[in-house]
Amino acid sequence: MNGWVKIAGLGPGDPDLVTPQVTAALAEATDVVGYIPYVARVSARPGLRLHPSDNRVELDRARHALEMAAAGRRVVIVSSGDPGVFAMAAAVYEAVEAGGATWSKTQIEVLPGITAMLAAAARAGAPLGHDFCAINLSDNLKPWALIEKRLRLAVEGDFAMAFYNPRSKSRPEGFGRALDLLKQACGDDRPVIFARAVSTAEEQIRVVPLSQTRPEMADMRTVVIVGASGTRVIDPTGAPVVYTPRSVPE
Amino acid sequence: MNGWVKIAGLGPGDPDLVTPQVTAALAEATDVVGYIPYVARVSARPGLRLHPSDNRVELDRARHALEMAAAGRRVVIVSSGDPGVFAMAAAVYEAVEAGGATWSKTQIEVLPGITAMLAAAARAGAPLGHDFCAINLSDNLKPWALIEKRLRLAVEGDFAMAFYNPRSKSRPEGFGRALDLLKQACGDDRPVIFARAVSTAEEQIRVVPLSQTRPEMADMRTVVIVGASGTRVIDPTGAPVVYTPRSVPE
Repeated sequence: MNGWVKIAGLGPGDPDLVTPQVTAALAEATDVVGYIPYVARVSARPGLRLHPSDNRVELDRARHALEMAAAGRRVVIVSSGDPGVFAMAAAVYEAVEAGGATWSKTQIEVLPGITAMLAAAARAGAPLGHDFCAINLSDNLKPWALIEKRLRLAVEGDFAMAFYNPRSKSRPEGFGRALDLLKQACGDDRPVIFARAVSTAEEQIRVVPLSQTRPEMADMRTVVIVGASGTRVIDPTGAPVVYTPRSVPE
Repeated sequence: MNGWVKIAGLGPGDPDLVTPQVTAALAEATDVVGYIPYVARVSARPGLRLHPSDNRVELDRARHALEMAAAGRRVVIVSSGDPGVFAMAAAVYEAVEAGGATWSKTQIEVLPGITAMLAAAARAGAPLGHDFCAINLSDNLKPWALIEKRLRLAVEGDFAMAFYNPRSKSRPEGFGRALDLLKQACGDDRPVIFARAVSTAEEQIRVVPLSQTRPEMADMRTVVIVGASGTRVIDPTGAPVVYTPRSVPE
């Protein structure tokens, strides 16, 4: 039996944003592994075992998937968005490296998906239309000082910024500090987009000037996009549209 | 007649990476507008007019699409990858803003796609698994000094980096200067991925240590990904896999 692991991105929520490649992998799978709410997005069918697990057990989940594949099963690890952006793909390769030769015959593939910041950007206009950074604001796995350093450098480089995991119940304070830093560093009142649950029935898109942002505008289902200095807010049809022009003048 | 403009991402090339949302928009369209090779990816059918145009006429193309929509036609503007990343979405909103009230009743929607850097990252492993920047290396629309500034700051912030439009026939020298800058600034021999024509029959993925990179390894169909300091190259099954761990130690 030839087992495999495919690390698949389910996109932000709308089934119409799941690629045919991922849909085909799920149709061939014997097992689906992932964080509880992501596995819940996969339709049950005879012959398919679902293995939902809790947050923060990424390495255990990766090893479990690799073990099942080595035993000949066809395993899809599901991530929301894209699996390569703050998600399961890196965790699987960490487990592979830690395993030495253990997984040398296991076929592993990453299937990209629509990541949250690009789905959010599409709904808001084109705020990431020029150079940008993606920053995970969770300090579970890196020191907070590094997050602040990256924010300052991103502002200095005049990148637009997309923030993943801006705020959780266990880390309520970091995002407020990040907003305070940006208010001081940016020196202007650039637009900030709070995009919650994009492409789902609970979708909410808010465009707020930086000076009026408050930490409680975000939760863990929110992606936050901060414009660059040249980012524009226009209102062509009665709803704000945010875009970053393609040109930067000399 | 209710016309509309949908700015749609076709993904990197493989039809299995086109979202059902984009496929549905193309099925409803009366007109498809875009750069010649992207329009060539859309299947002809009765009732669908194809309007391929050359590169560097983005604003003309945007206005043409808006005019057709105002006349009641259903227009899809196609981009490769994601339309919000160095592509047509920003150009359309530039045209909308320049038009004042002209397009105030025109329905415009952006349909996200799999952008090149994420397709490339998936094929290479998970090199963008931690904080990263996306930088357009073309200096058609911004000063070269700004590109160099952003490269230096991205290195200082220890971001992984993805470069779009690294090299064209009309700008053969910039990418060599960028590589020279990186070789000096990084202070280590981190992995660089040259991902050409990802997900097509011509796909080529090369992983090269920074010191051995040469400008001619990239062309305009290449996305280049440069790892962060912690990015790892492993070789679990005889082919190099590049990933950036999720953690940064204190």
